[in-house]
Amino acid sequence: MIVIKIGGRLVEHPPLLERLADTLARRPHPFIVVHGGGVLADTLSLALGIETRVIGGRRVTDEATLRVAVMAYAGWVNKTIVAALQRRGINACGLSGCDGRLITSTRRPAGEIDWGLVGDVDRVDAPALARLLAGGITPVLSPITLGADGQLLNSNADGVAAAVAAAMREHQPIDLLFCLDKPGVLLDAADPSSLIPRLTRARYRELHLAGAIHSGMIPKLDNAFKAIAAGVHSARLLHPDDLGNPDAGTTITEN
Amino acid sequence: MIVIKIGGRLVEHPPLLERLADTLARRPHPFIVVHGGGVLADTLSLALGIETRVIGGRRVTDEATLRVAVMAYAGWVNKTIVAALQRRGINACGLSGCDGRLITSTRRPAGEIDWGLVGDVDRVDAPALARLLAGGITPVLSPITLGADGQLLNSNADGVAAAVAAAMREHQPIDLLFCLDKPGVLLDAADPSSLIPRLTRARYRELHLAGAIHSGMIPKLDNAFKAIAAGVHSARLLHPDDLGNPDAGTTITEN
Repeated sequence: MIVIKIGGRLVEHPPLLERLADTLARRPHPFIVVHGGGVLADTLSLALGIETRVIGGRRVTDEATLRVAVMAYAGWVNKTIVAALQRRGINACGLSGCDGRLITSTRRPAGEIDWGLVGDVDRVDAPALARLLAGGITPVLSPITLGADGQLLNSNADGVAAAVAAAMREHQPIDLLFCLDKPGVLLDAADPSSLIPRLTRARYRELHLAGAIHSGMIPKLDNAFKAIAAGVHSARLLHPDDLGNPDAGTTITEN
Repeated sequence: MIVIKIGGRLVEHPPLLERLADTLARRPHPFIVVHGGGVLADTLSLALGIETRVIGGRRVTDEATLRVAVMAYAGWVNKTIVAALQRRGINACGLSGCDGRLITSTRRPAGEIDWGLVGDVDRVDAPALARLLAGGITPVLSPITLGADGQLLNSNADGVAAAVAAAMREHQPIDLLFCLDKPGVLLDAADPSSLIPRLTRARYRELHLAGAIHSGMIPKLDNAFKAIAAGVHSARLLHPDDLGNPDAGTTITEN
């Protein structure tokens, strides 16, 4: 089974979303979608005059930003993906972490940075997701999670994808896919031929220290390594148009 | 069992939502929430420079308005209600009609008015709702529905509540409650003591013809009468603070 993380950017490019939905509809195996929505959240914040602060690919979330994030992620992005899958006969169901307490999180304590209403995932209700899949339902998950006190929290979608993959691996082997707007991890962001086909943890550390990995890629890679350390069968970063190709993108390996 | 329709206005008044959630948490019986979100959709449209057209309590929905409606209804309003219930130990799950094809609709044909992306409810998957309830899950439903072609459509939340009540009555007797910002149907909107405790269909016709019923009340009353004609046990319009009082509000009766 695959857990596929897609960016909100996809939803702003309907032909790309339609192609991805076509590819997913052709797959014989079940899957879970986890999505972000940062692009729409940025556009919406800008239009509403709400300041956006993203540090190292993670969004500082005050009350106004939480409202925007919930509207963008749990609202438009989630339901647009659900509808695209439903149009192809996939019985998708859009859920956020708060729904049925599917994904609970802990508010990140204010340290050097006060992240505000941001939650780090504690627990994914894998049996509930397994029951949905067994009933022919394809979960489409937004990264709005629920704190222990019942507060809605904004979680990093890459972290949610990794946590979902790690929780589901107790039920079956999981391939975790992170979709990018590039063919994979590139040594030179401007040059697609500089793709790194296999990235070990040691090599990632080197590249990170050398400043060769750009900010939005860091949470994806951190979470990909976290997932394989947690026993997820494989983790790969690739362009959604390459989803049908098992050799495409950058495969993450411990060694 | 009750099906309770609440307006989006409630979510903009946190103390009112908290009191309603307290009352619902004290109820021994299961319930389904259906909500609107017009107030937030209006505010958001205004802030984004999108024109709002509401005719007879129903919203004309172009592409930009649909996006706003999905963000407001399926996003912020839905998840805010879910979180308020979760804080009280009620295992709420927010769903829109598109999720698992729970509520399908037909796009309203353009006649005198072209309503745009507006859907009239065709079918509610009552067995799926019954399974959720049997599993201890409280459905919180937004009025974003799915057209036969997989298009997201904006449906009137009062109509969704009536359709959900009518579909669920095959499983058990249903009391349908419409929450208002008034104590019920008033003869004089400015005078709470002019409450009509019981409203028959004949009396409603008279008041409607006399222009005594204001625009937002019409879909609620039309849908309340439709629901009891479809065999729903009772329909009542009341203020959410009166939910614990079985005699409060306006009860709808055929004769």
